[in-house]
Amino acid sequence: MSRTSPTTAGTAGPVLLGPGAHATLRPAAAAAIEGGFWQVRRAVNARAGIPQGPRLLESAGNLHDLRLAAGTAEGDFRGDYPFMDSDVYKWLEAASWQLGQSAPDGRDAAEADGERAALAGEVDRIIGLVAAAQQPDGYLNTWFQVTKGGARYQDLRWGHELYCAGHLIQAAVAHHRSTGGKELLRVATRFADHIDTVFGPGKAIESFDGHPEVETALVELYRETGERRYLDLAQYFVDRHGHGVLGGEAYCQDRVPLRAAENVEGHAVRQLYLLAAAADLACETGEAELRAAGERLWRAMTATKTHLTGGVGAHHDKEDFGDPFELPTERAYCETCAAIASIQWSWRMALLTGEARYGDLIERTLFNGVLSGVSLDGETWLYVNPLQIRDGHTDLGGDKSARRTEWFRCACCPPNVMRLLASLEHYVTSTDGAGLQVHQYASGRYTGDAAGRPVVVSAHTTYPAAGTVTFTVEETPGDRPWTLSLRIPHWSAGFAARVAGEPVEDTAADGWLRLERVWAPGDEVTLELDLTPRLTSADPRVDAVRGCVAIERGPLVYCLEQVDHPGGGLDDIVIDTSRPLTEQDRPDLLGGVVTVRAAGRRRAAPDSGHWWPYRAAGRGGTAPDEDPAVPLTAIPYYAWANRQDGSMRVWLPTG
Amino acid sequence: MSRTSPTTAGTAGPVLLGPGAHATLRPAAAAAIEGGFWQVRRAVNARAGIPQGPRLLESAGNLHDLRLAAGTAEGDFRGDYPFMDSDVYKWLEAASWQLGQSAPDGRDAAEADGERAALAGEVDRIIGLVAAAQQPDGYLNTWFQVTKGGARYQDLRWGHELYCAGHLIQAAVAHHRSTGGKELLRVATRFADHIDTVFGPGKAIESFDGHPEVETALVELYRETGERRYLDLAQYFVDRHGHGVLGGEAYCQDRVPLRAAENVEGHAVRQLYLLAAAADLACETGEAELRAAGERLWRAMTATKTHLTGGVGAHHDKEDFGDPFELPTERAYCETCAAIASIQWSWRMALLTGEARYGDLIERTLFNGVLSGVSLDGETWLYVNPLQIRDGHTDLGGDKSARRTEWFRCACCPPNVMRLLASLEHYVTSTDGAGLQVHQYASGRYTGDAAGRPVVVSAHTTYPAAGTVTFTVEETPGDRPWTLSLRIPHWSAGFAARVAGEPVEDTAADGWLRLERVWAPGDEVTLELDLTPRLTSADPRVDAVRGCVAIERGPLVYCLEQVDHPGGGLDDIVIDTSRPLTEQDRPDLLGGVVTVRAAGRRRAAPDSGHWWPYRAAGRGGTAPDEDPAVPLTAIPYYAWANRQDGSMRVWLPTG
Repeated sequence: MSRTSPTTAGTAGPVLLGPGAHATLRPAAAAAIEGGFWQVRRAVNARAGIPQGPRLLESAGNLHDLRLAAGTAEGDFRGDYPFMDSDVYKWLEAASWQLGQSAPDGRDAAEADGERAALAGEVDRIIGLVAAAQQPDGYLNTWFQVTKGGARYQDLRWGHELYCAGHLIQAAVAHHRSTGGKELLRVATRFADHIDTVFGPGKAIESFDGHPEVETALVELYRETGERRYLDLAQYFVDRHGHGVLGGEAYCQDRVPLRAAENVEGHAVRQLYLLAAAADLACETGEAELRAAGERLWRAMTATKTHLTGGVGAHHDKEDFGDPFELPTERAYCETCAAIASIQWSWRMALLTGEARYGDLIERTLFNGVLSGVSLDGETWLYVNPLQIRDGHTDLGGDKSARRTEWFRCACCPPNVMRLLASLEHYVTSTDGAGLQVHQYASGRYTGDAAGRPVVVSAHTTYPAAGTVTFTVEETPGDRPWTLSLRIPHWSAGFAARVAGEPVEDTAADGWLRLERVWAPGDEVTLELDLTPRLTSADPRVDAVRGCVAIERGPLVYCLEQVDHPGGGLDDIVIDTSRPLTEQDRPDLLGGVVTVRAAGRRRAAPDSGHWWPYRAAGRGGTAPDEDPAVPLTAIPYYAWANRQDGSMRVWLPTG
Repeated sequence: MSRTSPTTAGTAGPVLLGPGAHATLRPAAAAAIEGGFWQVRRAVNARAGIPQGPRLLESAGNLHDLRLAAGTAEGDFRGDYPFMDSDVYKWLEAASWQLGQSAPDGRDAAEADGERAALAGEVDRIIGLVAAAQQPDGYLNTWFQVTKGGARYQDLRWGHELYCAGHLIQAAVAHHRSTGGKELLRVATRFADHIDTVFGPGKAIESFDGHPEVETALVELYRETGERRYLDLAQYFVDRHGHGVLGGEAYCQDRVPLRAAENVEGHAVRQLYLLAAAADLACETGEAELRAAGERLWRAMTATKTHLTGGVGAHHDKEDFGDPFELPTERAYCETCAAIASIQWSWRMALLTGEARYGDLIERTLFNGVLSGVSLDGETWLYVNPLQIRDGHTDLGGDKSARRTEWFRCACCPPNVMRLLASLEHYVTSTDGAGLQVHQYASGRYTGDAAGRPVVVSAHTTYPAAGTVTFTVEETPGDRPWTLSLRIPHWSAGFAARVAGEPVEDTAADGWLRLERVWAPGDEVTLELDLTPRLTSADPRVDAVRGCVAIERGPLVYCLEQVDHPGGGLDDIVIDTSRPLTEQDRPDLLGGVVTVRAAGRRRAAPDSGHWWPYRAAGRGGTAPDEDPAVPLTAIPYYAWANRQDGSMRVWLPTG
């Protein structure tokens, strides 16, 4: 069924472009992360995150509900939402990518093989539950089958039936690419075929699902099977948005067509999954208008609606984008899933256009907005990722709590993190047929293509602890030049590069340092990025952080946590920007971090006995030189909320 | 049935304390607003607001649903919520207070009588619908009677049955006090008696309604009927909160008992109605602990959780208070109803304690947070009252839109404004038995008590346009001293007072200027408040407005609207605080306002071509002296959103 060659470990990844794709870049032929920062995070994901999935899906009722739909269990339906099946599918996708990993993460091979066999067994068991729950005509959604008497497609705004189908398809594609297994792909294809009989021009339903996801999944199914009608159906769904067919709400991505939109809007995850699908389509069809819309909307989102962490979404209540420059700190919505969706969209845009800035946003979002969503031990999660927790914060629990939780009632985020980390190597490099582009700096081994001949480069780095990345050419056609392109991060004040110890004269253009050489095996390229800690300020239209700076170091956003600042809260802290930032390597702290220290003071509370907190401008402040000095210790934002509860802030007042 | 003397026009008002009350102050024996700012706003309420109620309640389905419950109509239930009956009751309360007005607002007496007769007819008609819908045992809620097959009290968190009962009782008390009519009081008493058979210690349900309201209503019913068991039931309900009986959520006021609470929390209206009831109880019973809790929570709310406008509530999604100092501008929730609830609570605290600061907050909230909720023509409404609308704001409609609306799906606010304005004269003055306290400055005629003898004072003022208020002693026992107490607003930088043209030496203490004299009829007291426009800044912990000032003048908060600042938006505006503010009387604008002008500039957009809005601190800014100067024209906040759509802001960056 697959037109791709039988998958081999290390090549199975998302966004495997079709043979006629119009994208500038293509995914690297093979990639493996080995060592360094990401191997640690991925090992936690592989050993603590993914293996706990079946237990959690059982205790949350997802697997029980599948059995109910299959008629093999009795009792009440346990899910709270119509999209609970998607948690199962996303876990299957994560586990499938994990099964595709060749690197034993430095472990004992026999132990690794045992873990893999156990995981494969769990995957097969759960695929069996999914297959059993499917209806004879291919339809599958436990909520509607069990609680709605089989009524279908009655509530496309909220029903999530095609959304769930999309995640089923993504899981099936991942499982097939990673293992060659066909059972889940058979289930997914039957569902896709069923959808194709119901939805489309002149068919029973000329509408779409209010939560995009099936669109990008159908493009992947087209890539995996070669069946053009899946691509056509994806195109139909994308094009149908924005014309009021589904009520005209921004929430459902139905207020304005993408090709006419001026900025991102509505539910953040819905918007970004739709945009990822649009980029997929532009990659496959070469449509200029859809590409232009993607580029325009991406610039508008990053310039006006993105938090420093790469997180997006301003409002808790509708989980949506706010107005331009409406970027609240303590109520930053910044759903972990939205950050992941942003990466998925940016990666497709990077492939489509070849431009480096998409890698900039991916890096920022990955290290900050996504990674904060999972605890350092891989076992607890955040659904929202705020940039501030106030002194005296009353945590009222629930999915949108600022306290890490083992699972959520709406558990979309945990398996989403799992699937991203388990396939992360595929976001690191690409090829354009004339060499290798390095979008992210992660130790590992990456294979590109130079006019049909493989080029293999290994990378070694402790990044983002240190800024040095060493590349070694492992395999090269020695008779022709090809280009090793290194993304120079947009935050970088400067860089230095050497080839075989000799400084290179090449300058970066459009964010790429392009090293075109006739390479020989063993050639070494060293890139030095300047990780000096820096203070960052925001566009003055971002009212929420006026008069504040943030500490950054390399790709990492930093924050203060209360636990590091005894003797008071954080809401009275002021940073002294005239004093230098210093860094300290702390292998003992939070799994090993570089902390950044700054000078600060603690403002005396103004007239705390008074009942009214507003007063004549210019009065009531305390003299800064009388405030007690407080040394500030900042930690990487991704590591917050891993110790005791307390206040936190990214943006620090300067006066 | 009533122990109060037969009501006379001008004496019927809310919070008519019982005979054994322990409050420091009592409502004035009679009060009438005549002339000035509030007569205009109240005339609009009387002629445009209240009369449209029956039509809107008909078109929204509320009256239809009453007929359904009575069995006199057929069709579908039309309300979207279980609390739709309360809209009818709040309108009945508003209309009843209006019927109690004696002042013809300067109109032709025959015309006024005709309007009053028409209104009385509508009130009687709707009371008939309410009475017909009541069940034989006294229960009444159309939602549960019609759509839930008569199931009762199954969902106290969200069912609002006692909440609706509370508004029914409030309406009945108002109708009885204003007109002497007993029909609605009979209906309400039957419902109250039914509730008393079901709820209480050892009874079928030992719980309470998740939305407080019945508590304060039952205290009023006690006051109106003299039946102590209504007071006892109110006490039971208040005491039952905060012990986890109803799930323990802050939203339902069940996380912590009031007597142990450190700050206001949860759903803002629910919290404030509960606190109003607690103050009612403390007034009637003299309980020191409940009084102390009220004082503590009021200070905490005003010091940490109140917007400059007096508006409260930080979050749209749960309509709740946020953390201390979490006071967002564009997503300020500030429900009109919450501002009204705040006034109701503060007024009870003022009576309980006699302290002036409650009048300070009432004044601020009334002129800003409440009045912005109704358009100048009295015909359209705001549910939320934000402090900022951004350039490029996409208004997505719905109840929480920033665009004024004729009615809401959840139409709690419009009749709430109507009932407050129709009874406003009762929040102006009080008596302590030794004179008259003036809490608010409104032209009119107010009656206090001096050792059992009436004292009558008239007030004349164009406040808040001008700061002069002239009081004339109309009636006084000429043989003994009594005290005229004038609240000196907390925002006032200074004041001057004269008695019979002679400057008074008396100084204000605790917010009161107390003038103890042996007064003679015709004695004139003049108070001059300094209304010089001023710049106000916030406690630095209010992150949302760091580096900003607001313009205020007297009790009015000002704002900029885009329509007054052509040539660009408001998000790039900077105010020059080194230049003076000037005021201009504009009788032609917005029904007559004093505008305040300031010097400003429009910041050049920083590197608008760039995709990332964060940059190295200290870089990227434009030179202020190159920015174009923009004269700023501020209008009173209450008058915003009465012209064309556009951006708005209260807080203005200073750099």
